[in-house]
Amino acid sequence: MNHQLKKLFEPESIAIIGASKDPRKIGHSILKNVLSGGYKGKVYPVNPSGGEILGLETFRSVGDIEGPVDVVSLAIPAKFCLDAVRDCAEKGVGYLQVITSGFSEIGNHKEEREMVRIAHSAGMRILGPNIFGMYSAGPSMNLTFSASTISPGGVAILTQSGALGVAMIGRTAVDNMGLSAVVSTGNKADIDEADLLGYLEDDDQTRVVLMYIEGIKNGEKLLPVLKRTARKKPVIVIKSGRSERGAMAAASHTGSLAGLDAIFDSVMKQCGALRAESLEEAFNWCRFLSFAPEPSGKRTVIVTNGGGVGVLATDACEKQGIELFDDQEVLRKAFEEATPSFGSTRNPIDITGAAKVEDYKAALNAPVHCEQIDSTLTLYCETAIFDSENLIPMVRNTFEAHREAGKPVSYAIIGGTSVEDAIRELNRQNMPVFRDVDPAVSCMGAMYRYSTFKNRVITEEPEPDVDIDAIDKIIDGALAEERTFLLADEGQAVMHAAGITVPKSIIAKNLEMAVEAAEEIGYPVVMKVVSKDIVHKSDAGGLALDLENRDEVVDAYEAIMNNCRAYDPGAHIKGVEVAEMVRPGLELVVGAVRDPAFGPVVMCGLGGIYVEVMKDVAFRSYPLNTEEARRMLQEVKSYPLLLGVRGEQKKDIKGVLSTILKVGSILSRCPRITDIEINPVMVYEKTAGLKALDVRILLKNSTEEK
Amino acid sequence: MNHQLKKLFEPESIAIIGASKDPRKIGHSILKNVLSGGYKGKVYPVNPSGGEILGLETFRSVGDIEGPVDVVSLAIPAKFCLDAVRDCAEKGVGYLQVITSGFSEIGNHKEEREMVRIAHSAGMRILGPNIFGMYSAGPSMNLTFSASTISPGGVAILTQSGALGVAMIGRTAVDNMGLSAVVSTGNKADIDEADLLGYLEDDDQTRVVLMYIEGIKNGEKLLPVLKRTARKKPVIVIKSGRSERGAMAAASHTGSLAGLDAIFDSVMKQCGALRAESLEEAFNWCRFLSFAPEPSGKRTVIVTNGGGVGVLATDACEKQGIELFDDQEVLRKAFEEATPSFGSTRNPIDITGAAKVEDYKAALNAPVHCEQIDSTLTLYCETAIFDSENLIPMVRNTFEAHREAGKPVSYAIIGGTSVEDAIRELNRQNMPVFRDVDPAVSCMGAMYRYSTFKNRVITEEPEPDVDIDAIDKIIDGALAEERTFLLADEGQAVMHAAGITVPKSIIAKNLEMAVEAAEEIGYPVVMKVVSKDIVHKSDAGGLALDLENRDEVVDAYEAIMNNCRAYDPGAHIKGVEVAEMVRPGLELVVGAVRDPAFGPVVMCGLGGIYVEVMKDVAFRSYPLNTEEARRMLQEVKSYPLLLGVRGEQKKDIKGVLSTILKVGSILSRCPRITDIEINPVMVYEKTAGLKALDVRILLKNSTEEK
Repeated sequence: MNHQLKKLFEPESIAIIGASKDPRKIGHSILKNVLSGGYKGKVYPVNPSGGEILGLETFRSVGDIEGPVDVVSLAIPAKFCLDAVRDCAEKGVGYLQVITSGFSEIGNHKEEREMVRIAHSAGMRILGPNIFGMYSAGPSMNLTFSASTISPGGVAILTQSGALGVAMIGRTAVDNMGLSAVVSTGNKADIDEADLLGYLEDDDQTRVVLMYIEGIKNGEKLLPVLKRTARKKPVIVIKSGRSERGAMAAASHTGSLAGLDAIFDSVMKQCGALRAESLEEAFNWCRFLSFAPEPSGKRTVIVTNGGGVGVLATDACEKQGIELFDDQEVLRKAFEEATPSFGSTRNPIDITGAAKVEDYKAALNAPVHCEQIDSTLTLYCETAIFDSENLIPMVRNTFEAHREAGKPVSYAIIGGTSVEDAIRELNRQNMPVFRDVDPAVSCMGAMYRYSTFKNRVITEEPEPDVDIDAIDKIIDGALAEERTFLLADEGQAVMHAAGITVPKSIIAKNLEMAVEAAEEIGYPVVMKVVSKDIVHKSDAGGLALDLENRDEVVDAYEAIMNNCRAYDPGAHIKGVEVAEMVRPGLELVVGAVRDPAFGPVVMCGLGGIYVEVMKDVAFRSYPLNTEEARRMLQEVKSYPLLLGVRGEQKKDIKGVLSTILKVGSILSRCPRITDIEINPVMVYEKTAGLKALDVRILLKNSTEEK
Repeated sequence: MNHQLKKLFEPESIAIIGASKDPRKIGHSILKNVLSGGYKGKVYPVNPSGGEILGLETFRSVGDIEGPVDVVSLAIPAKFCLDAVRDCAEKGVGYLQVITSGFSEIGNHKEEREMVRIAHSAGMRILGPNIFGMYSAGPSMNLTFSASTISPGGVAILTQSGALGVAMIGRTAVDNMGLSAVVSTGNKADIDEADLLGYLEDDDQTRVVLMYIEGIKNGEKLLPVLKRTARKKPVIVIKSGRSERGAMAAASHTGSLAGLDAIFDSVMKQCGALRAESLEEAFNWCRFLSFAPEPSGKRTVIVTNGGGVGVLATDACEKQGIELFDDQEVLRKAFEEATPSFGSTRNPIDITGAAKVEDYKAALNAPVHCEQIDSTLTLYCETAIFDSENLIPMVRNTFEAHREAGKPVSYAIIGGTSVEDAIRELNRQNMPVFRDVDPAVSCMGAMYRYSTFKNRVITEEPEPDVDIDAIDKIIDGALAEERTFLLADEGQAVMHAAGITVPKSIIAKNLEMAVEAAEEIGYPVVMKVVSKDIVHKSDAGGLALDLENRDEVVDAYEAIMNNCRAYDPGAHIKGVEVAEMVRPGLELVVGAVRDPAFGPVVMCGLGGIYVEVMKDVAFRSYPLNTEEARRMLQEVKSYPLLLGVRGEQKKDIKGVLSTILKVGSILSRCPRITDIEINPVMVYEKTAGLKALDVRILLKNSTEEK
């Protein structure tokens, strides 16, 4: 591996600018951690006062150091930072970790930008500012000011929050979670998650990546590397700001629908990242996924000594989408010897409160040897019969047996102080043991979601066939009129260019043309006055529905003209639109929006009046293939309506998928479009296809551009 | 207090039938626990072999004991139990705890029923069978075979699962949770949760009740006492079997909608019980609610030394419905002294990673003295600056200050091993300190949900005005024809008896009458053939829609007659139904069902084709008042459609509420009805009211009755 950040993670020499004798100073803590952490390379403390710190000779400036410096940790007041950056640039330092805060996070963008400019001009990269540093297990480098010691292991942590990052390092000591790396990303002035993931992706020591994210700056850069990394190892994400809204342009109806968080959530899923709800959950997943073998299938059994917890685990499995193996015959054969007559060999397997250590061993031996069982959830409620002293050997023994068979196993153990001591000891030995049913099941659920993603075959598809030139011309026309939205007929023309059906419609300039139009379209038709001056067509009497024959068209035409002239004698009337009367169907909404973080994002869901209140919509980042669009559509709660309920025919799902991809393609290839929303898309049975009824397209306001 | 179960919880004398010298026997463990628990009354071991056990003289039979025996614990093989029960009945024992299993839980209902029969005939009550016993703090009675010691305190546990119950007792020792009582309810052959709650309701030592429930046998008995108890003290419920379905009659469409769990969930909410998702959550709530003062208002502040966890807590608050106080002026004044310039006095208050113990004390002093702040969430990420040794005194000090001011406070503390030790010690001292943000916020959320319920004024309302006699006659008619469902016109008649509007409709026997009917109803009308022999009216050509005038009615009448005669020449045609053509409105569903556990339950939600897929419905047990019905309606996600979206007028909410209450009243007062479903109820703007379009009423199948 020769990644661009290789020397940041594996430096041969580091300097600490701001190294101090004063134990209360950050520069002291960092140097102390580097030394006590057993860093294998050269260490240069830098302090203008000179002298010796922690037994090392200091340098008055980074320029005084002989030989190359791969990484500098900068822990001096903000006002001195720019000079120090210049010194480092001159020295030819590779990477600069700016610990110091007081830059963009308090509104000081200028100096931060200048810092990056200086660095880049010298080919130097910057981590931070406003960070607690980083740890890398390879060279045993603890270049942080954390008070806790860090053990090497398989989990890499990337954290945008410094305070939480330090606290998380502390927690890894409690949970005995070994780390391959910890990086504080801070203000992400230069190096961001995408860069760091790019290194971790190929780092063999890193088995799981945990990211704590507060906001994404450049999602379009992050997504490809996140997708790649997630196919190699689990990436667990905690994102704060679920309740934060409003970054989406206020004008965008699509945005107001769901806020950024629903998009973030969908995009993470699309990339195969596992989003945890809490720190606790994220840590549990890290521990579990670091050591669990990859399951060869989805069939899970629950083994328990208490019926109650068995049911609780069944509930949790359903919530997590875990498949409980249900072949009674196989289960009976596998478990009958280990299960007393008053127990149950139905899943959950209840070996009853009378179960002793041998019974657990026998019962847990069954899934190990049964080819049709792929993973095991083990539950234990403390009993007097099963001496708690036996817990540790029982878990170790059955865990090892599962591991050798390549089958994941998870344990939930509930009881008193001796059980608690056993859990602590088992965690110390990296066994997947939990204090409650839910975390044990949640880990198994995360594992199955991950393995489903990993085993997915992803096929690339060509861009849908859309006439982008034609659309660009329509946009040119609108912008020439200084409009930031397309008119209804322009929207229809865009649909036409994409091959998305709209209701047949003809503009008629006189009665004769109106009748001809109606005959061509076929009855029944609707008629609408065409006039920029008449906005509320219905109020003006400019609308006629359900016209069934020539006579009705004639009557309606005259009525519309009379009504509208009476309503606004000065109005310029271009004519009357004669359109197909669309029959009712299933109303969906399909749209695309340019997300500030992730770029083009497509959306679909239940349409019509239900859009805003039900919020039954799903999102994906574009591009995506048909299969991903199908998964997106299946996330919509009202999806079964497309399959047909109450004896209705199946609807044109293929048409919906194609519409989603086309709308995404338009937004992605026409950078001047910010929003497309078709609501409703009237979807019919397969043979009848679908129709885009109301098309709303917004354009970038050129004055808004930065 | 002189509750019927007083002597069960406060016996002056207990006998243990099956007391044994053999330490592996349950009868031995129970006696040992009674003695080591320091029980204050008289203890009589009973064993036919006689002799001495654990220093006490045994009795050969319960009849040999002189003086009264309040409680007997029965721990002998099932085959000897009936004889022992007879002995106890003869002796005049008050309460019998049947530890022994092997009764209804394995299908042996007969002996269990016989046991209860014998007991009741002698005025004796039975707890169990299939239990681990019970503990009661008042008389220091540990009449269980649990291996853990139990500390007295304020939490009462009722558990249907034995294995989990014993494990929970163990956990109380780990979490230092003191108990007022633990009762294993087992098969609930006689004494059930309702009886036990009836005692705990007035037991002053019990501050919080925790119930683990697998299934409710008699919900109608439980609900009133649960409601009463919850108004006095928090009742926390864990219910397993969320994923269990199917107890609801298969024929009932309402049942298939949501399964029992949604009903259970709603009914618990209605009673003021707090339903926990996991054991961990339930225990956290117990600990927190045992000691938290009642808040005087809803305004919460978050105080943190890390921005990241502050945001995580904000997210969690939104999820829990906790109101974050947002008066910037008040917040600035209250917190500016304790907050450095680079921190934030906006909620969450960020006192930054530089905060020392005095800063925390100062910041947490502010809400104590600020009248506009009602509760505080405190977050701490381990830093080197804040020496972890200071954590314990800081928490104790600020917790006490909050308690004295009558303000709840909750702490989330994240860090390494020294933080972990501090958390353990603080929990030992009953401080509400948690390892992660979510549990700290979840406890606060549970507290606010409870206090909202407790402060609710509940007004009784008279039964809605429904002509039950008229409905009973309609039912008589249907049952006389051996139907278990009502015909459409009977359903309409039931609506009429309840004053719920249905579309105008007249059955016409000939053309002349059809025209008259149409004129009376007003155009447009629809017409449908009336014939029991023609089920699929549309297929038979027996349906005509949107008839706008006399001529169209005449044509349609003849067409229907011709079509139907051609379709089925032998069909008996009663005539044609002429009905108002109903204009589109908001389609809701309103219904009522007889739940096997809770009796009459009402339902409302989004109707039409969306019922099954969106499952956007809410439930309540009947009776309920208008305000509770309103809360129910507000739980429906599509509720905003009733308020009017996109400039629409507000809909007839009052009419919907009244329909819900009427439907509930009908089901409750007509025991022969099992299901009522109106789908759709077409709801219009306030002046236009609503219309019950399709009414389905099912009757009890008399052959199904037990």
